[in-house]
Amino acid sequence: MSPDARNPGSGAFDPDLWRQRVNGVLESWLPRDEPQASRLQRAMRYAVLGSGKRVRPLLVYITGDALGVAHEQLDGPAAAVECIHSYSLVHDDLPAMDDDDLRRGRPTCHIAFDEATAILAGDALQMLAVQVLADDAAMRVSPARRLQMISTLAAASGIAGMAGGQAMDLDAAGKFPDEPFLQRMHEMKTGALIRASVLLGALSAKNLSDADKNCLARYGACVGLAFQICDDILDQEGELEIIGKRPGQDQAHAKPNYPAVVGLQAAQQRADQLHREAISALDEFSGNPDGLTALSGYLLARDH
Amino acid sequence: MSPDARNPGSGAFDPDLWRQRVNGVLESWLPRDEPQASRLQRAMRYAVLGSGKRVRPLLVYITGDALGVAHEQLDGPAAAVECIHSYSLVHDDLPAMDDDDLRRGRPTCHIAFDEATAILAGDALQMLAVQVLADDAAMRVSPARRLQMISTLAAASGIAGMAGGQAMDLDAAGKFPDEPFLQRMHEMKTGALIRASVLLGALSAKNLSDADKNCLARYGACVGLAFQICDDILDQEGELEIIGKRPGQDQAHAKPNYPAVVGLQAAQQRADQLHREAISALDEFSGNPDGLTALSGYLLARDH
Repeated sequence: MSPDARNPGSGAFDPDLWRQRVNGVLESWLPRDEPQASRLQRAMRYAVLGSGKRVRPLLVYITGDALGVAHEQLDGPAAAVECIHSYSLVHDDLPAMDDDDLRRGRPTCHIAFDEATAILAGDALQMLAVQVLADDAAMRVSPARRLQMISTLAAASGIAGMAGGQAMDLDAAGKFPDEPFLQRMHEMKTGALIRASVLLGALSAKNLSDADKNCLARYGACVGLAFQICDDILDQEGELEIIGKRPGQDQAHAKPNYPAVVGLQAAQQRADQLHREAISALDEFSGNPDGLTALSGYLLARDH
Repeated sequence: MSPDARNPGSGAFDPDLWRQRVNGVLESWLPRDEPQASRLQRAMRYAVLGSGKRVRPLLVYITGDALGVAHEQLDGPAAAVECIHSYSLVHDDLPAMDDDDLRRGRPTCHIAFDEATAILAGDALQMLAVQVLADDAAMRVSPARRLQMISTLAAASGIAGMAGGQAMDLDAAGKFPDEPFLQRMHEMKTGALIRASVLLGALSAKNLSDADKNCLARYGACVGLAFQICDDILDQEGELEIIGKRPGQDQAHAKPNYPAVVGLQAAQQRADQLHREAISALDEFSGNPDGLTALSGYLLARDH
């Protein structure tokens, strides 16, 4: 069954179908795989395509689906959030940043290509995300709504979101921050884009009420923080073959994370609590919450 | 006389007034200069503020003015194009790219701060540009028009524009390309954003005709290429104290440029010819061409 064959709002939860779907959409937006493709074009494809979990597109699709949005209207926002996420991985992995050589089970972009190309691929992917959302043919919601989406995505990616959080992370290396600092850092570095993914799915709905928007923003914020705490736990507990990157990198770089600051058990409890909070945030949600509930549990239980 | 005091469409040409104006606008969008500002926030300010020529904002203001657009409606696009330009300088100057230590007469961003901060500052400035154009309070033109502006700016900055051109430039180091290659590279690396600046000014006009848009696009393309050829000539002929960066960097990095490929005299002739083409592109322009004509001459005659 293709995702299109489902009834919108069915609350069905099949991550693999959505992943296949967004991979097709991304392929259509990225430079083509042809012999005359430039090094930069190939690096952009390399950075985005492959075995990504596609968590952020899942959030777009499942939120939009919960509100009865036609799936093809979610393709643009789903591709856009993944372009932003992919760019952030490429730049974060650079030698001047986290200096990682393995990502998604393969050499990182600057290893597979070179540093200059990786920097430019990240830059070009940021602009590709914006182009997708600004494209008249790809996006059928009203121009005013699309501006809200662009604004939401840009705010989540910039100084007050992801880029600001990564800077906090780099600054914190070798220090011993407290949990409030760590939470703020995670909310900006990871949480903001996850929350924005939920909001982009929501903003795709024609008649989005303020009440639903608020529910979903709260859901997104809880899922976002829980997701990063799980990531911290996986960094400590995970195995390279499964997580696709080297475990123990936080410790190796003296970077603060949840298990290090509050302990492994407390970190797990905090993630569980956030999952429950995410579910309660949906109590007043007018759409079908089943897919969102399943997704929060799925992200919490993941092993990579 | 402040720019506001002028009659729109007067064709007046006073670059210093526009520069002062855009500096104020940029200051209002950038993180505030306060003791608790983070390293990244300070780096964003450092990258944008200072002694920039503000060529791209000038193009926005003077194009909009030529069409009778109220000046305050041009502030957003003018700030946005300068944020994109500033980000590109920060990333281009990185050790993995052009490895420059001096820019606008000061240490480059990664020297004044560090590489990670410079990468993130460039990233955050890209998103700031998008936020400005998507901001309801800053931008009074219709949402559909703002989407066109965002789309135009993103296309000019990404793989088919500035980022793609910078990749060509890096690939070409040590090779001896012909003039068509060099022209294509310059059109993408520099020309696309200059043309986009003209178009953003034009798109700020309520009733922009296709004919005027086409005239202005042609003007922008000619001015953009002429500007980069002059830059190449200044790299060969300029003095550090005046151009604010080290001259001879193209030769030092074995990077192709116009004087190297076609000779100094032919490069100057080509720039002069493009200036004339830019002026003739305005023959059918329904607005007041005086400011645009003056600006093209000003950019050609500059010594930095």
